[in-house]
Amino acid sequence: MRLVAIGGSDAGIQAALRARELDPSAEVTVVLADAYPNYSICGIPYYVSGDVPDWHNLAHRTIAELEATGMTLRLDTMARQIDPDSHRVSLGAGGYGQASLEYDALVLATGALPVTPPIAGLDQLGPPEGVHLLYSMGDTFALTRTLERRDIRRAVIVGAGYVGLEMAEARAARGVTVTQVEQPPEVLPTIDPELGALVHAELQRHGVEVSCGTRVDAIQRPEPKSAHRLEVSATGPDGDPVRFPADLVLVSDGVHPDSRIAADAGAELGTRVAIVVDRQMHTNLPDVLAPGDCVITHHRLSGISYLPLGATAHKQGRIAGENALGGSREFAGSLGTQVVKVFDLVAARTGLRDSEAVAAGSDPITVSSEADDHKAYYPDSHTIAMRYTGDRRTGQLLGVQLVGHLRSEIAKRIDIPATAIFNRMTVDALSDLDLSYTPPLGSPWDVVQTGAQTWQRQVDAMPFTAA
Amino acid sequence: MRLVAIGGSDAGIQAALRARELDPSAEVTVVLADAYPNYSICGIPYYVSGDVPDWHNLAHRTIAELEATGMTLRLDTMARQIDPDSHRVSLGAGGYGQASLEYDALVLATGALPVTPPIAGLDQLGPPEGVHLLYSMGDTFALTRTLERRDIRRAVIVGAGYVGLEMAEARAARGVTVTQVEQPPEVLPTIDPELGALVHAELQRHGVEVSCGTRVDAIQRPEPKSAHRLEVSATGPDGDPVRFPADLVLVSDGVHPDSRIAADAGAELGTRVAIVVDRQMHTNLPDVLAPGDCVITHHRLSGISYLPLGATAHKQGRIAGENALGGSREFAGSLGTQVVKVFDLVAARTGLRDSEAVAAGSDPITVSSEADDHKAYYPDSHTIAMRYTGDRRTGQLLGVQLVGHLRSEIAKRIDIPATAIFNRMTVDALSDLDLSYTPPLGSPWDVVQTGAQTWQRQVDAMPFTAA
Repeated sequence: MRLVAIGGSDAGIQAALRARELDPSAEVTVVLADAYPNYSICGIPYYVSGDVPDWHNLAHRTIAELEATGMTLRLDTMARQIDPDSHRVSLGAGGYGQASLEYDALVLATGALPVTPPIAGLDQLGPPEGVHLLYSMGDTFALTRTLERRDIRRAVIVGAGYVGLEMAEARAARGVTVTQVEQPPEVLPTIDPELGALVHAELQRHGVEVSCGTRVDAIQRPEPKSAHRLEVSATGPDGDPVRFPADLVLVSDGVHPDSRIAADAGAELGTRVAIVVDRQMHTNLPDVLAPGDCVITHHRLSGISYLPLGATAHKQGRIAGENALGGSREFAGSLGTQVVKVFDLVAARTGLRDSEAVAAGSDPITVSSEADDHKAYYPDSHTIAMRYTGDRRTGQLLGVQLVGHLRSEIAKRIDIPATAIFNRMTVDALSDLDLSYTPPLGSPWDVVQTGAQTWQRQVDAMPFTAA
Repeated sequence: MRLVAIGGSDAGIQAALRARELDPSAEVTVVLADAYPNYSICGIPYYVSGDVPDWHNLAHRTIAELEATGMTLRLDTMARQIDPDSHRVSLGAGGYGQASLEYDALVLATGALPVTPPIAGLDQLGPPEGVHLLYSMGDTFALTRTLERRDIRRAVIVGAGYVGLEMAEARAARGVTVTQVEQPPEVLPTIDPELGALVHAELQRHGVEVSCGTRVDAIQRPEPKSAHRLEVSATGPDGDPVRFPADLVLVSDGVHPDSRIAADAGAELGTRVAIVVDRQMHTNLPDVLAPGDCVITHHRLSGISYLPLGATAHKQGRIAGENALGGSREFAGSLGTQVVKVFDLVAARTGLRDSEAVAAGSDPITVSSEADDHKAYYPDSHTIAMRYTGDRRTGQLLGVQLVGHLRSEIAKRIDIPATAIFNRMTVDALSDLDLSYTPPLGSPWDVVQTGAQTWQRQVDAMPFTAA
């Protein structure tokens, strides 16, 4: 059994590890374009911030640890082409070893690439001028070189999604004046604006200038008299032009699947040109599986979407590794569970928001509420803001959003409704869950239960709602 | 509709609140023996420690807030006797108002009383001598009087369950030399000894002297020359006598149901003389329901037990209030989910331990493992110690125990398997859960998933185990 994985990030490595775990006789080769297998892409902002002093630590496992499992790593090697008929991957020049690899099973884990938004000047400016995208370790080193060699006083971050927010915190924590420019009307558009506003306020509290509803049109070198190297031209919420001086511009506009090699080989592509896979992570090509950020994602509530997330890549990679050996494990589906820390605030979501639930064919009601993270009599309690979405006809819990303090266990609290939604529980049934309670860390009715009770009370009070 | 609740703690008040919420025309009266309705018994240690400066704050709701819901509170009033035939509760002298109450539905929420273990001298010594039990607000005031009026340098705490541990922390944090004496071989005997040992070490790290395997035989006044007012005589693990000098002795040996008034009225009693109730919280007496610490508890995995916990009392009270009005909501069952903070450590459990699973008819395997609470490259990661119990034949998840750092979100992390067990998931299926991940707060495979994977790997490697 010869398994080849293309891509050495989360999905490819998880597939390789799982295959080696299940069949120690399997020949497992991982081909990766750079020299950084199994690096935590999600950890990059924390290296840039200085929280992680040594970039080597971003590796989930060292090369030695990976090789100790019996897998072969082909570093700095481009996979150029797949020939599905002969079950062969041809490799680019410049690498060492043979020029092609035969496989019995191929795992395509090519991941994603950063989106380059249509901003004038972005095609001509790059790291030498202080304009950066951030996705790979290579991007990271380019950025840290800029930070080390230049006097960065003002940074503009284009985009206020997860990475954009983490980078804003990373630079502001280092004394840089950060302006965060976001086209949607509120930051963190993956949660509802009324909760995003709390994140917005947290950014401002820590000195980050936030400019929402603002479309970036161009990045250019300013007039020679400017104290800064760059200037960002944008259109503000009222349609007026705005300009932001900058020594550094970081563009963080999300990612798109890297499906080129798959498409060239005849793989079927779907939404956002992501590779189409079934629940067992098989593509339409024989013996070719694909997990992670390059594939369409089965969503447990809404069907098919493109939802690149690290935890999903881990799960799908593990399943692909198992099924490459002949297994039949199915990806149970994503719920889009996500969490981000922004200074002392944590924002998390799982499942569907109201508009997403409508699109998925539900009849949702979304209800806001607040509750203390633990008994208010015990010191340092904080309020958690919640949004619950449930189906008014069936009562099914569809989604939960939580925003609260760093010490309010938001990350693992969102996992309670994530586990409940996974099991298709109703909102009402959350009150039946036997959750832990001690006054310093919770309440007899946990926050996630009071949020559910508030939702139920409001739905029960509505006219024309079935009991 | 006249609803009378006997008992003004969690269960009684939840029943009254729920009844008032569902039927604003219901006449709801709560009869309680003291003047402290809706006080958080679980919060008492934090008042004694000084974390909660004002005892009034221990009330979940003030008297005014309770009365604003439309319920009537009969404070300082003993319920003496129930006449099930005439649907009447007679009240003790000394209270105000009429001497008896008629009811259409009665909620017996008499709660529990502290166990008085067979220790010589305990019947003759009490608060004036510095010997205390701790359960009610009255006990609390007696204890704080002792702490304020006496010079307490050495305290002996008999028992190392939840309250005993919290009290050890409360006194040690105030500079008192605390000796914790526990008869079982390890502290916190509600978790497995290998995890209890971590709690033991945490106590010692904070200066608490711990003496396990030690049976307390007597409490007496010592020889006149002693520097301390009291002396505790015990038998150590090797059978040798041990003596502990003390200025204060606190006995914390758990609770037993207060079912006297129910028994006198003909209520059926079960295990540990707890009132027998069905899943709808009905007793065998007509129109008499009973929730909380005075009743047998339906356990979701193991059937019937006595398991007095605050969160359970809240749930059962709410159900009793609903069903007293004619509802038919069922208590979904406890999983014995519990959590305790001991200095900078948190210990939690849900479901069954190995021996409990055997008793419940399962064929359990219990596997230990460890994992980092979040990515180790991000500062301040801590190791979480885990014990997973699952059924080797069916693969069903039966129980999880976690011990970790105060900042490792242990309380809400245990709620993930609690929700999984509630939904009868297998250990293997935990890997399918879509849980949140960001490097400062988790890992792509959360701790609760790596613990499950370790269990599965060990079970798969065992001979004679079905795949």
